[in-house]
Amino acid sequence: MLLSKFFLPLIKEQPKEASIISHSLMLKAGLVTQAASGIYTWLPLGLKVLDKVNQIIKKNLDQVGCLELLMPCIQPADLWNESGRFDAYGKELLRIKDRHDNDLLFSPTAEELVTDIFRKAIKSYKDLPKILYQTQWKFRDEIRPRFGVMRAREFYMKDAYSFDLDKESALKTYDLMYDTYYKIFNDLGLKAVAVKADSGPIGGDYSHEFHILANTGESTIYYDSRLEEETDLQKRKKLYAVTDEKHTEGACEEEYLRSKKGIEVGHVFYIGAEKYAEKMKAFVTNKEGHNLPVHMGCYGIGISRLVGAIIEASHDSQGIIWPKQVTPFDISLINIHPNSYETTRIAFDFYNKLNKLGFATLLDDKDQSAGSKFATHDLIGIPWHVIISEKMIQSGKFELKDRTTGQVSSLSLEEIINKLSST
Amino acid sequence: MLLSKFFLPLIKEQPKEASIISHSLMLKAGLVTQAASGIYTWLPLGLKVLDKVNQIIKKNLDQVGCLELLMPCIQPADLWNESGRFDAYGKELLRIKDRHDNDLLFSPTAEELVTDIFRKAIKSYKDLPKILYQTQWKFRDEIRPRFGVMRAREFYMKDAYSFDLDKESALKTYDLMYDTYYKIFNDLGLKAVAVKADSGPIGGDYSHEFHILANTGESTIYYDSRLEEETDLQKRKKLYAVTDEKHTEGACEEEYLRSKKGIEVGHVFYIGAEKYAEKMKAFVTNKEGHNLPVHMGCYGIGISRLVGAIIEASHDSQGIIWPKQVTPFDISLINIHPNSYETTRIAFDFYNKLNKLGFATLLDDKDQSAGSKFATHDLIGIPWHVIISEKMIQSGKFELKDRTTGQVSSLSLEEIINKLSST
Repeated sequence: MLLSKFFLPLIKEQPKEASIISHSLMLKAGLVTQAASGIYTWLPLGLKVLDKVNQIIKKNLDQVGCLELLMPCIQPADLWNESGRFDAYGKELLRIKDRHDNDLLFSPTAEELVTDIFRKAIKSYKDLPKILYQTQWKFRDEIRPRFGVMRAREFYMKDAYSFDLDKESALKTYDLMYDTYYKIFNDLGLKAVAVKADSGPIGGDYSHEFHILANTGESTIYYDSRLEEETDLQKRKKLYAVTDEKHTEGACEEEYLRSKKGIEVGHVFYIGAEKYAEKMKAFVTNKEGHNLPVHMGCYGIGISRLVGAIIEASHDSQGIIWPKQVTPFDISLINIHPNSYETTRIAFDFYNKLNKLGFATLLDDKDQSAGSKFATHDLIGIPWHVIISEKMIQSGKFELKDRTTGQVSSLSLEEIINKLSST
Repeated sequence: MLLSKFFLPLIKEQPKEASIISHSLMLKAGLVTQAASGIYTWLPLGLKVLDKVNQIIKKNLDQVGCLELLMPCIQPADLWNESGRFDAYGKELLRIKDRHDNDLLFSPTAEELVTDIFRKAIKSYKDLPKILYQTQWKFRDEIRPRFGVMRAREFYMKDAYSFDLDKESALKTYDLMYDTYYKIFNDLGLKAVAVKADSGPIGGDYSHEFHILANTGESTIYYDSRLEEETDLQKRKKLYAVTDEKHTEGACEEEYLRSKKGIEVGHVFYIGAEKYAEKMKAFVTNKEGHNLPVHMGCYGIGISRLVGAIIEASHDSQGIIWPKQVTPFDISLINIHPNSYETTRIAFDFYNKLNKLGFATLLDDKDQSAGSKFATHDLIGIPWHVIISEKMIQSGKFELKDRTTGQVSSLSLEEIINKLSST
């Protein structure tokens, strides 16, 4: 992509409305722009990140047999009356009347609709278990939207719903999703910790929140340091990990106790059979021919919120530092002298070469000062910067900057390709 | 994908609510299910088609320099008051009040918001032209939703908006999009005809509707048969093509005149500078430093509607016949004897081989009669069916059925792979 042809509206001033760093950086770096309070447009640079995060999540869910569908944003109130949530949900639920005065709502979550889809389609234990998921825009009418995409009204969420014949099978599905969530956050280049969460009247160990560790996180997580290395599912679930309001002294061996700031980005939850299946009559027959309410679980990841959380976890005073897994471009190629024919020719040749090799490259071909260009690319946080100038062409050595470490190497174009290909 | 693990709720009875074939087939084949009047969930099989259609459109738009962003579903009324459309739009506009009694709406189209994004970001002719696009769910509160996804309330639409300094440049952009639309429909495996459409007070030749030719189409298109072969943009635009209400006898040479049924799936439109740019003060400076309202164009493709249109254009009495470009799976692999160890072993081996070769394969491993299986796979319309039975294993020859022609060949598994790879 040529920067001159791209749509990247950067903001120089500190945005007044932004009280946290991710909100500020997302506005300044042209990732999002506000349409209304708590409602954002994802600009081309931000959308590329959102898509990448989404693809990594989808790939992992598909691999473990989850099936993707897509439910509508607007849903009928009828179904929510069956569960009792149309009245119970509170003012966060955006209630809508259509032209015929029917009650509708903008879905903040989709247990009712997915249960309706399930009960119409599946009647026998033979078709279980099933995990259905979607990635769809949701709406929650927050009283005071803030922190940019971190607490927005319209937000992008992956929500999965599982259906099992009995509790034993449902808990196996829960464990599968718990494990898959760790894998997802790992694939996103993030450090996540699953902490025990409220499971309500159901009780038990089957509700966990996933927090991304970030110095600027909103809550404090106390956890056993062995969690960072442990990959065995059952062992991991037994290690200590709670948010500060649940922390009790002495509950974790002192030598292993760690405390870090975290941002909640996901939740896995065993719902059981009472809340939706019984009320909405989602029954299946078992081997013996008995009709039983299906055991459900739900699993969410806030995708738009996650983009904010990634920035909270990975930035410096100059701007964003994208993890390589989710970066919108792999390389910023910065032509310092776009008015020089020779520099421009070499920059374009190298740009074409990098793209052919599969590196998504942003070529800065704009007529601006070197300082302004460096500031732009530090702000938008592409992991590698390659700098081309008249002088460098004479020496045959070009600058390669690692945005994460700040380290600058002086290399030939071939050496730069070798280095980029090996990392 | 194993059919036993998939979520494919087929409907045997003729759906009473369906008065057109695509609506009926989409419900019966488990592509969609209704959530409320004119509001659908896209089930896994249907979502795969929707995604493929979307990918082909995106690829073509990106190739000609369009830039993707994503605007929110819910938009503030303020912007629509600037253009005057909040009051003027009529009852199709879903107006919403939030908890603070602010006026919002569910976007049926996004000229106002994209103009707002543009005016905040771009001030100079140097940054023009720009074409911004999104693919997003829209809502139009139809008084009587019908024909399934063809006239739904919540629908998936690709909408692009162009910005140029003057009319001359805007018309070049228009021609580029006109040409790109032909390419998109061609890449989707469809025959499209662009007919002249109303351009309102602006006048001129700069409004075209794109219709897919289908025997069951909703309108009749009269066109010059040379249009089917012509690829030159300017020549193509000069050939006769109108809907029946605009047809006049003698306007096209008799020997070339053709009439076919069509379904409107796209629209390209030169808006000009008055309707949004002037009203909303989207001005740019030209070379001489004068401030001028930007010339806009808009370009839509109804993606969810297009899936219905594809089925209208490609089906028979047994069910859907997917064009290879958008089929949800490439191959249905039908195991007639899933209770036979040997047949099942060979079916799974072949399934793994096909997937490794890059063919998305649906293995029917369910315990059902052969007749029922054949009916299912004819209904869901995967282009190639491979049949494996005990008897065929003995003979070493398996059946390969071409769903489009109905032709059945008896071939070894290697010959089947050769045939599939060469088509």
